[in-house]
Amino acid sequence: MIDYQSILNNIYARVTRETDKGKIAKYIPELSRVDPNRFGIHLKLISGEEFSVGDSDVGFSIQSISKVLTLSMAMSQVEAKIWNRVDVEPSGNPFNHLSLLELEEGIPRNPLINSGAIVIADILVSQLKDPKAEFLKYVQDITGDPSISYNLKVAQSEKETGFNNYAAANLLKSFNNLNNSVDAVLDFYFHQCSLEMSCAQLSKAFFLFANKGLCLKNVARLTKSQAKRINAIMLTCGFYDEAGEFAFEVGLPGKSGVGGGIAASLPNEFSIAVWAPGLNPQGNSKLGMQALERFTTLTNQSIF
Amino acid sequence: MIDYQSILNNIYARVTRETDKGKIAKYIPELSRVDPNRFGIHLKLISGEEFSVGDSDVGFSIQSISKVLTLSMAMSQVEAKIWNRVDVEPSGNPFNHLSLLELEEGIPRNPLINSGAIVIADILVSQLKDPKAEFLKYVQDITGDPSISYNLKVAQSEKETGFNNYAAANLLKSFNNLNNSVDAVLDFYFHQCSLEMSCAQLSKAFFLFANKGLCLKNVARLTKSQAKRINAIMLTCGFYDEAGEFAFEVGLPGKSGVGGGIAASLPNEFSIAVWAPGLNPQGNSKLGMQALERFTTLTNQSIF
Amino acid sequence: MIDYQSILNNIYARVTRETDKGKIAKYIPELSRVDPNRFGIHLKLISGEEFSVGDSDVGFSIQSISKVLTLSMAMSQVEAKIWNRVDVEPSGNPFNHLSLLELEEGIPRNPLINSGAIVIADILVSQLKDPKAEFLKYVQDITGDPSISYNLKVAQSEKETGFNNYAAANLLKSFNNLNNSVDAVLDFYFHQCSLEMSCAQLSKAFFLFANKGLCLKNVARLTKSQAKRINAIMLTCGFYDEAGEFAFEVGLPGKSGVGGGIAASLPNEFSIAVWAPGLNPQGNSKLGMQALERFTTLTNQSIF
Amino acid sequence: MIDYQSILNNIYARVTRETDKGKIAKYIPELSRVDPNRFGIHLKLISGEEFSVGDSDVGFSIQSISKVLTLSMAMSQVEAKIWNRVDVEPSGNPFNHLSLLELEEGIPRNPLINSGAIVIADILVSQLKDPKAEFLKYVQDITGDPSISYNLKVAQSEKETGFNNYAAANLLKSFNNLNNSVDAVLDFYFHQCSLEMSCAQLSKAFFLFANKGLCLKNVARLTKSQAKRINAIMLTCGFYDEAGEFAFEVGLPGKSGVGGGIAASLPNEFSIAVWAPGLNPQGNSKLGMQALERFTTLTNQSIF
Repeated sequence: MIDYQSILNNIYARVTRETDKGKIAKYIPELSRVDPNRFGIHLKLISGEEFSVGDSDVGFSIQSISKVLTLSMAMSQVEAKIWNRVDVEPSGNPFNHLSLLELEEGIPRNPLINSGAIVIADILVSQLKDPKAEFLKYVQDITGDPSISYNLKVAQSEKETGFNNYAAANLLKSFNNLNNSVDAVLDFYFHQCSLEMSCAQLSKAFFLFANKGLCLKNVARLTKSQAKRINAIMLTCGFYDEAGEFAFEVGLPGKSGVGGGIAASLPNEFSIAVWAPGLNPQGNSKLGMQALERFTTLTNQSIF
Repeated sequence: MIDYQSILNNIYARVTRETDKGKIAKYIPELSRVDPNRFGIHLKLISGEEFSVGDSDVGFSIQSISKVLTLSMAMSQVEAKIWNRVDVEPSGNPFNHLSLLELEEGIPRNPLINSGAIVIADILVSQLKDPKAEFLKYVQDITGDPSISYNLKVAQSEKETGFNNYAAANLLKSFNNLNNSVDAVLDFYFHQCSLEMSCAQLSKAFFLFANKGLCLKNVARLTKSQAKRINAIMLTCGFYDEAGEFAFEVGLPGKSGVGGGIAASLPNEFSIAVWAPGLNPQGNSKLGMQALERFTTLTNQSIF
Repeated sequence: MIDYQSILNNIYARVTRETDKGKIAKYIPELSRVDPNRFGIHLKLISGEEFSVGDSDVGFSIQSISKVLTLSMAMSQVEAKIWNRVDVEPSGNPFNHLSLLELEEGIPRNPLINSGAIVIADILVSQLKDPKAEFLKYVQDITGDPSISYNLKVAQSEKETGFNNYAAANLLKSFNNLNNSVDAVLDFYFHQCSLEMSCAQLSKAFFLFANKGLCLKNVARLTKSQAKRINAIMLTCGFYDEAGEFAFEVGLPGKSGVGGGIAASLPNEFSIAVWAPGLNPQGNSKLGMQALERFTTLTNQSIF
Repeated sequence: MIDYQSILNNIYARVTRETDKGKIAKYIPELSRVDPNRFGIHLKLISGEEFSVGDSDVGFSIQSISKVLTLSMAMSQVEAKIWNRVDVEPSGNPFNHLSLLELEEGIPRNPLINSGAIVIADILVSQLKDPKAEFLKYVQDITGDPSISYNLKVAQSEKETGFNNYAAANLLKSFNNLNNSVDAVLDFYFHQCSLEMSCAQLSKAFFLFANKGLCLKNVARLTKSQAKRINAIMLTCGFYDEAGEFAFEVGLPGKSGVGGGIAASLPNEFSIAVWAPGLNPQGNSKLGMQALERFTTLTNQSIF
């Protein structure tokens, strides 16, 4: 049997010693004020057991990790409307996000890059009566935690500075791949990104993907096949242009956010979330990547 | 001596016979309602003589031809602020306008593509107290024709459907190459594109470029060097991805618009404007291109 | 317990009924002469059990599947020399293989696209005294089958028509990412692609990746970590621009070839090879993809 | 009347004072050994008058300037075969020459970039019995100077190191846009680039383009229309990604080479050649560009 707690302790001891903790995202004031020394991990086994270390109960801005949750909600409600509007291929390209969108005539490469997540947001805005409230409810439900909420300051800051997302949404609109107004879709999108969750909460949300679509209360939130597909998309597309590197070094389906969080799953085994605010040059949590690499090495567990 | 009138008559007779007149731009209702059989030419010699044929006095939407006029106004007022924000190279690429902008970190290839013209618009919005009124006045002044005006319906339609321009402006903003708000800049930009002018009026406006910067009243509106540079930019960048073809077949500095107009100059000789609403697949006036090719062949005049 | 044989039979019955079998690769005569109705599967469990159906013992041109085998050999001998010359990211791009290579200054995206495999070939040519003989020996050894051989006609045909590979190799050379002569490297490369193997033989070769690096005789041919990494690379990069789709629909690390073969592994469970010569528009075996999708659905086994 | 000689003297005095003379091309030993202080200009008026300053009679490697001469020869013999195999649009892109070729399926952007010139070379290799001898003869004839010759060492060096050109030629071949063998075409191409000519000789060769296709002996070597078209192509495509800049600053149709030469024409007025071996970052002669800019400013002559 694996002694998960001592493995987490080992990682904590080792990783927090690192002097180069990466760079904190500074594009909005709210993110830049986070303490760079924060570090937490929460692990949730399929068996129900949980292990944690460090700041695992401190909330942070989940940012792009939310893309997996909106995708999950959209797949559970209107999967048929998704795959002719978004592809499932890795984007590969660090340097020209809009270029690919333009070359491929408005079909985003996958739902985990910004343009793809904006299309998913558009689908939810069309589908839901009160998109922001209903999506928040969905996240609260699958985690069993009604205390989760949006950070409205973060959402507002992103609205004021998210010109690249406005560019993407308008480009999608020019290709007729956005049904609602740019403003309505981005209002929802900036809110989803502003969700604050702790590692403990995130690992509960990702339990779905580890547990064949069943949530903590054993309710089917996704079909088995949908859970499998979300894992597949996370593995090939979850880490920007470092997806291959993450598969190569870590070997878990997962998703990172510029808030420094990473959530991942090992199907049929566990879900896990890590938080360390400093980012590497590719925009993924520097120590978070190291922690997960160490975790799969020490436990000898990965999908490969 | 060249008999310009009979050359224009010859072109008219020949070109209006063409059955395939190209396709009228349909992206906004105002443009799509134009009669595809319209055809006019107006020629203005440096000597002052004028020649015309067909619908040379009928106003039409000058669209992208306006980019030369805003560039001219901006160069005359604040040239120093332009060239570190916009380049002067041909864009070459038909298929990925935003891609290049992204790859080149927000510096548009030249002031005659949309993104470049949006930067010029931004410069004028910063510079002028009442940009729309002052630019209109500038155009009225250089043509000596106070009847020229914006078509507000066209401007409004473009505002409602110009998602690609919103994408470009937001992308520029994300690269810190737009000082004013996207809405303020595009409001000006959509108005400049909506200007209605006839071939006669356009050839008067382009007289500046043929006449070393001096307008009809012999007032210096541009330095000799600025007039030369605008001609150079028009020659290398004035016809989207058909700039080379136009130089090759026609050999005049010029600029086309999706309203079907083309205005051009032969330095020290003449300015000329043609109008035929049907476009070729590259978005340039089909019969307008033919007319100018025939004109330079019959007159044996071109910059080459 | 899963009844693998009846699942294979079920797949055989279903898939061979398909009327649209895809298109046979025709770029060299040797490939174009294959019977489009060929279809075989071979499955090899970690336990040692084997199951097969159809033409599972008929040899075919493994083509790009060989890239996994040269990578495996190179990693086992000189892994330290690989990763600064080749990346491990998906290429994403169907349409411009050389473009990416150029933009990224001669570092191929991953070892399973042509340019990457050419770099691996270069590494082996530098490392081995008699590269062709030693690589063949390696493949014979890991499969335990000395009858495997190159098809010299196929190798010769590729040499005569492989201009795109000559372009890639010369481009690599221009970026100083090829140490040997273009001709020496491509001679080896065209031979590796010409290997003829049956599904039975391929599933034995891929047993390494399913079995933590241990071959059929329980000899460690790769470290556990290397086997894991090869699986990760296959999953993210093994199917050209359909890697995401394959992960999404099938969920196994694998590699396809234009000869119509696909070999895959489920770590700790099995290796499997399929052969159906007709290709889909992305260049992967059309019925092979369907067969594997059906296989993972019916067995309910995948890495996700 | 313009005092050309004192203008040339003025330029010489001014330009040779510059301390930053740019960087000499070093990719082959023969080019790297040139004295960076070399500087010459030769001007040839349509009237027949000639003016020169500095090293105007010293031969140097004309390199890419030869592309205009092969184009001229090909147009004079088989123009009908050219324009469906090469386009006439600026390439615009500094960084990915092969990318565009790949995206546009093997049709080079224009005949003055490497891939386009390789197609022109292929056309001449098909057309001529002894391509190298006949092309040399053509250049000797239009300049009236039988002493012009290839530098065989330069040709040999380029053959040994020109991997990027091998890549381009093989890519063209893979798109069926090369009829002869890669080796035959590049052998011719490397020889054309190795031509040694002085400024005086180059300005005589370019006299054709200034003089409506008539050579020094008043023999028509090109039609008027062909001469015009070559000027148009030089203006839009003659300076890599600095074509727009050259048109903007200088305003003459011309072509540069990495040997540090630039040859240009002003139709109906003069041809001119400059030589200064140091290059700017775009690969054009640094002082040569300055000299021509100063020349068109002081003479107040340009096509615009």
